[in-house]
Amino acid sequence: MKITIINGPNLNNLGTRDPEIYGSETLEQTNTKLQNAFPDVELEFFQSNSEGEIIDRIQQAGEDLNTMGIVINPGAYAHYSYAIADAITDCDIPVVEVHISNIHARESFRAKSVTGASADAVITGCGRQGYHLAVSYLLSLDL
Amino acid sequence: MKITIINGPNLNNLGTRDPEIYGSETLEQTNTKLQNAFPDVELEFFQSNSEGEIIDRIQQAGEDLNTMGIVINPGAYAHYSYAIADAITDCDIPVVEVHISNIHARESFRAKSVTGASADAVITGCGRQGYHLAVSYLLSLDL
Amino acid sequence: MKITIINGPNLNNLGTRDPEIYGSETLEQTNTKLQNAFPDVELEFFQSNSEGEIIDRIQQAGEDLNTMGIVINPGAYAHYSYAIADAITDCDIPVVEVHISNIHARESFRAKSVTGASADAVITGCGRQGYHLAVSYLLSLDL
Amino acid sequence: MKITIINGPNLNNLGTRDPEIYGSETLEQTNTKLQNAFPDVELEFFQSNSEGEIIDRIQQAGEDLNTMGIVINPGAYAHYSYAIADAITDCDIPVVEVHISNIHARESFRAKSVTGASADAVITGCGRQGYHLAVSYLLSLDL
Amino acid sequence: MKITIINGPNLNNLGTRDPEIYGSETLEQTNTKLQNAFPDVELEFFQSNSEGEIIDRIQQAGEDLNTMGIVINPGAYAHYSYAIADAITDCDIPVVEVHISNIHARESFRAKSVTGASADAVITGCGRQGYHLAVSYLLSLDL
Amino acid sequence: MKITIINGPNLNNLGTRDPEIYGSETLEQTNTKLQNAFPDVELEFFQSNSEGEIIDRIQQAGEDLNTMGIVINPGAYAHYSYAIADAITDCDIPVVEVHISNIHARESFRAKSVTGASADAVITGCGRQGYHLAVSYLLSLDL
Amino acid sequence: MKITIINGPNLNNLGTRDPEIYGSETLEQTNTKLQNAFPDVELEFFQSNSEGEIIDRIQQAGEDLNTMGIVINPGAYAHYSYAIADAITDCDIPVVEVHISNIHARESFRAKSVTGASADAVITGCGRQGYHLAVSYLLSLDL
Amino acid sequence: MKITIINGPNLNNLGTRDPEIYGSETLEQTNTKLQNAFPDVELEFFQSNSEGEIIDRIQQAGEDLNTMGIVINPGAYAHYSYAIADAITDCDIPVVEVHISNIHARESFRAKSVTGASADAVITGCGRQGYHLAVSYLLSLDL
Amino acid sequence: MKITIINGPNLNNLGTRDPEIYGSETLEQTNTKLQNAFPDVELEFFQSNSEGEIIDRIQQAGEDLNTMGIVINPGAYAHYSYAIADAITDCDIPVVEVHISNIHARESFRAKSVTGASADAVITGCGRQGYHLAVSYLLSLDL
Amino acid sequence: MKITIINGPNLNNLGTRDPEIYGSETLEQTNTKLQNAFPDVELEFFQSNSEGEIIDRIQQAGEDLNTMGIVINPGAYAHYSYAIADAITDCDIPVVEVHISNIHARESFRAKSVTGASADAVITGCGRQGYHLAVSYLLSLDL
Amino acid sequence: MKITIINGPNLNNLGTRDPEIYGSETLEQTNTKLQNAFPDVELEFFQSNSEGEIIDRIQQAGEDLNTMGIVINPGAYAHYSYAIADAITDCDIPVVEVHISNIHARESFRAKSVTGASADAVITGCGRQGYHLAVSYLLSLDL
Amino acid sequence: MKITIINGPNLNNLGTRDPEIYGSETLEQTNTKLQNAFPDVELEFFQSNSEGEIIDRIQQAGEDLNTMGIVINPGAYAHYSYAIADAITDCDIPVVEVHISNIHARESFRAKSVTGASADAVITGCGRQGYHLAVSYLLSLDL
Repeated sequence: MKITIINGPNLNNLGTRDPEIYGSETLEQTNTKLQNAFPDVELEFFQSNSEGEIIDRIQQAGEDLNTMGIVINPGAYAHYSYAIADAITDCDIPVVEVHISNIHARESFRAKSVTGASADAVITGCGRQGYHLAVSYLLSLDL
Repeated sequence: MKITIINGPNLNNLGTRDPEIYGSETLEQTNTKLQNAFPDVELEFFQSNSEGEIIDRIQQAGEDLNTMGIVINPGAYAHYSYAIADAITDCDIPVVEVHISNIHARESFRAKSVTGASADAVITGCGRQGYHLAVSYLLSLDL
Repeated sequence: MKITIINGPNLNNLGTRDPEIYGSETLEQTNTKLQNAFPDVELEFFQSNSEGEIIDRIQQAGEDLNTMGIVINPGAYAHYSYAIADAITDCDIPVVEVHISNIHARESFRAKSVTGASADAVITGCGRQGYHLAVSYLLSLDL
Repeated sequence: MKITIINGPNLNNLGTRDPEIYGSETLEQTNTKLQNAFPDVELEFFQSNSEGEIIDRIQQAGEDLNTMGIVINPGAYAHYSYAIADAITDCDIPVVEVHISNIHARESFRAKSVTGASADAVITGCGRQGYHLAVSYLLSLDL
Repeated sequence: MKITIINGPNLNNLGTRDPEIYGSETLEQTNTKLQNAFPDVELEFFQSNSEGEIIDRIQQAGEDLNTMGIVINPGAYAHYSYAIADAITDCDIPVVEVHISNIHARESFRAKSVTGASADAVITGCGRQGYHLAVSYLLSLDL
Repeated sequence: MKITIINGPNLNNLGTRDPEIYGSETLEQTNTKLQNAFPDVELEFFQSNSEGEIIDRIQQAGEDLNTMGIVINPGAYAHYSYAIADAITDCDIPVVEVHISNIHARESFRAKSVTGASADAVITGCGRQGYHLAVSYLLSLDL
Repeated sequence: MKITIINGPNLNNLGTRDPEIYGSETLEQTNTKLQNAFPDVELEFFQSNSEGEIIDRIQQAGEDLNTMGIVINPGAYAHYSYAIADAITDCDIPVVEVHISNIHARESFRAKSVTGASADAVITGCGRQGYHLAVSYLLSLDL
Repeated sequence: MKITIINGPNLNNLGTRDPEIYGSETLEQTNTKLQNAFPDVELEFFQSNSEGEIIDRIQQAGEDLNTMGIVINPGAYAHYSYAIADAITDCDIPVVEVHISNIHARESFRAKSVTGASADAVITGCGRQGYHLAVSYLLSLDL
Repeated sequence: MKITIINGPNLNNLGTRDPEIYGSETLEQTNTKLQNAFPDVELEFFQSNSEGEIIDRIQQAGEDLNTMGIVINPGAYAHYSYAIADAITDCDIPVVEVHISNIHARESFRAKSVTGASADAVITGCGRQGYHLAVSYLLSLDL
Repeated sequence: MKITIINGPNLNNLGTRDPEIYGSETLEQTNTKLQNAFPDVELEFFQSNSEGEIIDRIQQAGEDLNTMGIVINPGAYAHYSYAIADAITDCDIPVVEVHISNIHARESFRAKSVTGASADAVITGCGRQGYHLAVSYLLSLDL
Repeated sequence: MKITIINGPNLNNLGTRDPEIYGSETLEQTNTKLQNAFPDVELEFFQSNSEGEIIDRIQQAGEDLNTMGIVINPGAYAHYSYAIADAITDCDIPVVEVHISNIHARESFRAKSVTGASADAVITGCGRQGYHLAVSYLLSLDL
Repeated sequence: MKITIINGPNLNNLGTRDPEIYGSETLEQTNTKLQNAFPDVELEFFQSNSEGEIIDRIQQAGEDLNTMGIVINPGAYAHYSYAIADAITDCDIPVVEVHISNIHARESFRAKSVTGASADAVITGCGRQGYHLAVSYLLSLDL
């Protein structure tokens, strides 16, 4: 049983920028902790700054019979990428969108998530813990 | 250690309406399951259709030194109650907003949560499981 | 067979203010005339300035097997109370919204009725006669 | 004593399209039932797909001293015909606008009635019964 | 087997105005070429500057059992005639909307086609060739 | 030398309605005075409530080699008839739009004239005198 | 001679939250100072988080012949409560709206006061002193 | 009998810029022609690029008992100067606004005239002839 | 100790226009009464119709060490003069904006005060008394 | 003679998802049929989920002297990719945009095509047949 | 060879306010440094808070045959002064607009420059160095 | 000391398209001239049509200790790529955005630069010279 964890643009820089705000934990460390927290699930991690590659990866996960769901943090693409939104809609497995900060509490353009409208659920503002909650939720669907 | 669970307008009807969509589980049953899932936390449940009473309850939780956080599903008030939003802002303990359905995927007026902008985090679309994730998140803050 | 007549904020002042415009007939007198016009139906009258109490009353009517419909004049709540709108939507019996004045002909914010979008029908601008037409319409559904 | 009943574009097709939704009653049958329901009033029926002819007919009714009011279903013209709206405004007799379906509950462009802003009253969502209520209301003015 | 070709306001002037832009081919010549290109189909040509007459003609085509489809260039009515849009929606045969110029590349009000939203397909910017493509498409449905 | 004077919807009622505001001068009297004021020009008067007929008449004037210009009061069509606007644009002779009242000083929808954007000039708020100024202006072009 | 002082949602928390910003003066202390400053006027103090109760209180003050005016700080209700606005409009005595902070200088939704549009005057940004100015103004009307 | 002719910003450059479009006639020459065309009226000419000076001049004309009206071309101030608009509203004599080009046919911001909403009439698109028509109209009021 | 009182465009006409509405008290009389009411403060009065001069005066007051605050009624400039708003922001002394009428209750463009967003406080709808309240407030800051 | 056929994001999944709606024909099969229908033209097929690669391919086609035109289905990029729009504008050969479904009849954000504004023509709602019509149109230009 | 340097409202206060942000360099010092950096060009410096005087100065520069260009920092007028924008458009010499701070990164109303739309170039966010770059650019045109 | 010069979509076509407008200088030639103008700085040139690759390159420059700044022309991505904007915000070195044409003077969607809001400065409308000014500005920061 696999779950694909997709991180979008600029998230590869987690931990190296603004450590006083986001902490010094890198994306790699976040991923490791997440895998450790769910030892019975095979987590596949993917990060890209490219909209097209993210769509490719969503499609690939959707076609993989062993993948039970997708956790995606689309970064800023959440706010305008109708192409990623379509990929999520086309995808037959559940998709949970995660944002580390609370998108409702930032600039007004961030309050709207066009990709979130295609996802099954959106978890925002729970920090890195959001990824844990998302995996948790996907696993609860499987019970 | 206590957590206050506040449900807003029309959520008292959970389980009695549209059972084919929302399931036949009542709000009371949902609450019981939630308490069972977190036996070490004292959950205080509150439901009201009244905006004023919800504000009262948020204030009361904020002033109770034993309460470590609030989980609130403001129902439709989420979309226009700046008064509830102010109460959340004034509150010194963390607040997680939960919506059973994905507010990004419904009518356009539901995509905006004015109360969510004051909350710390927003979990939407995870069904009744959203309350579990929210309590989980609050507890993770306490570690 | 019962029909619930709900009047919202400020309608308790009917007849006492601006009598040259609205006439000097009080809400109580209007209600009495309405009951007299339909002697075979039990009309239950309710007025409140509170959004929450109005939702409570809609729910109560919806759960009362003897109640065949609701006539509601939500007053200004018509224009922003998505919570009342949700209560109307959840309600399994027909709901007719009435406004004494023509909401299309007043300030622009009054032209939109978010509760009317959840109701079955909206009658606006027929004065106190609108309540009669609404009861009439509900009864015609019963034929 | 006469009342003019004006039906606008596409309403000549009532009963022949979507009979499962609107029923199989034709506009002619609806008109006949309406006349039968009010045997003491002379109802003049008019239908046209043309904005100009509808304006002509409103003017004619307004100038006919024996006509006590107009019931008009402007169809889609309700949403943009300021020319019909002006004709209604110019008309010295009361005008009631009727829509068979609830315009507040359909596409957003239908929620606004520019002609309804010129009419005295708007009855929407009461089906064919709306014409009866409208005539009823006009007659009540005459008492 | 018949197809109705409807041209809206100002299209009767094709070929006589701005010949350097639109060419000197008149609407009649365009129609003749179109008929010649599809000798096996009976094309019925109709042009009117009147919104009401265009609705009449759409209804007539929709009721004619021998008519397999409609090609319509609503001219400027495309941008505001919800009445024509309703007529297209009510019509049970396929409707293809054609615009000679590319409506997406002109004034902003032309980019939106309210009638196109009711049609099955919209072909814009292909010049007079658009009518040929539209007939072609209708015939392909019949295969 | 001819000038065509086109009056749109509801202007046939000039003088018979609101005489205290608009005076009791009918459209016919206004036309007669206008002809008397310009005895050397042949004024052709046309009034219609129909958008299509107004377009027809603009086209006819545009094709008449003896007609040097058009004065048009499109009434409420000014605010939404892109079809009339296109007819004016297609017309090779100068067109002056006249409004009796000042459209900038009334409801906000009247401040925008889509037909005025196609005309050469717009004269608004000069009462019936506006027609005189418009003819005057057209004649000044001919000098 | 009485003046009613109404404070809306969350203002009961004055002084206990953000003392470094708003000072540590509680609402009760503010009220006491206000009464002391105007010893000849009977000030009636009311605070509620409930929209309905605020409307009730406005109506009650409006009907009390000894009450010469209302000072109201509607809190966040100022920005969307058309129901409170209607209550203010219906009220025959002068109403002054007060906001402690300058609503023009905060989030954009706060710049618009729908209740202020019904009030006689609005005083914003003068801190707790705003209540003094409002009472002062009401008294000046009485001279 | 005097009429004040006010020209706003950049109109002092008439004739010296874009002569191929606007002709080479300067503002001074335009003024002279205007005076010559109305020898019996004393025209007072004023031009300024300053909003404040234009307001000063409107006030002065309004207070001069011998001045029967104002012709004003506010230039670009027409589109945003609510201060000039207020001065026009305050003025007790008739005011006619003139624009040399047709403001409805240029950039969208020019279609709205906030000063025109305060004026009695607006003449736009008649070139320098617009000033003549405006004076003509003012004189016609005096008959 | 000095306070500068700045009045903007058209306020020099106070008392001479619409005396039935605004009373016949001139600006000079208002100023005199204001000085009399606060004999211990040196009030410096300034009025100008010019945006630039108002900015000049704000700067001058801001640089005068003896001036403790500014009371400004920017008239219509309040609604669009970002330049005056910047001057107020740059000014180190407190600034109170006054409007004689209630700007929230007039045309929609007047509800927004861009200068008020830079001021410390805004008092609107208190008539000429507003100046007294504003001076009062400034003096209360000095305590 | 070559024509480039470019398909954008998610179109590689044609036929494998929602076969009951879109049919089970894959993109490859669609391409093959298209080539078979036009045996005399060399069709170059390209699909990518990447905005940048689509721009690359448009540029390459534009620079290939043997390529006479482009048929592009930009998928969701049509609604926001001004970068692709610029590439189409820069391209010297004709470009026809195709959408399988009718973009005017779906979510409101899909009604606007920013790339279509740069293309020569847009064909929408003709299903896979749209590609045939587009190639047809390009070939007609070559006659 | 001359270049005119125009600074708009509030820029005369440079260096005296917020020295920790903008530095303590006054406008006069900035001007001196600028002249020193370009010893071969005659720089004419002008500052005014008045919109009208700025227009006057632009016109004067445009008419001075020895002036090769204008550098203008319109301050807040940039965001609403269509009158200054027209003056820039009328001016035959190149105009470069400079803003010390980055207007795209501040309040939303500052992101739009109506004067910048008439200028040849806009340099924003480069601090006082922006003036140097602007002069540099003008000189590069002269090469 | 290095500066990275990033050019976005379609800028690789500089000089080959519209040479009469943009001149026949290719991007390569522009780059060469730029390097020649600043022989003491190591300029790293990068061009891509891909949003993702541009983000990659910004991140790489931001992490390179020898790179003192970035000059970026994001092409059309400037108007919607919040992902590139975030990359610029995350970047600790100064970033100057350049546009060859004046984005304020083109289509309305180009006036807004979401990436420019994250950059330190924006230089627009200076042609290829804009790159020189940008490098100049970055170097001035280093003094």
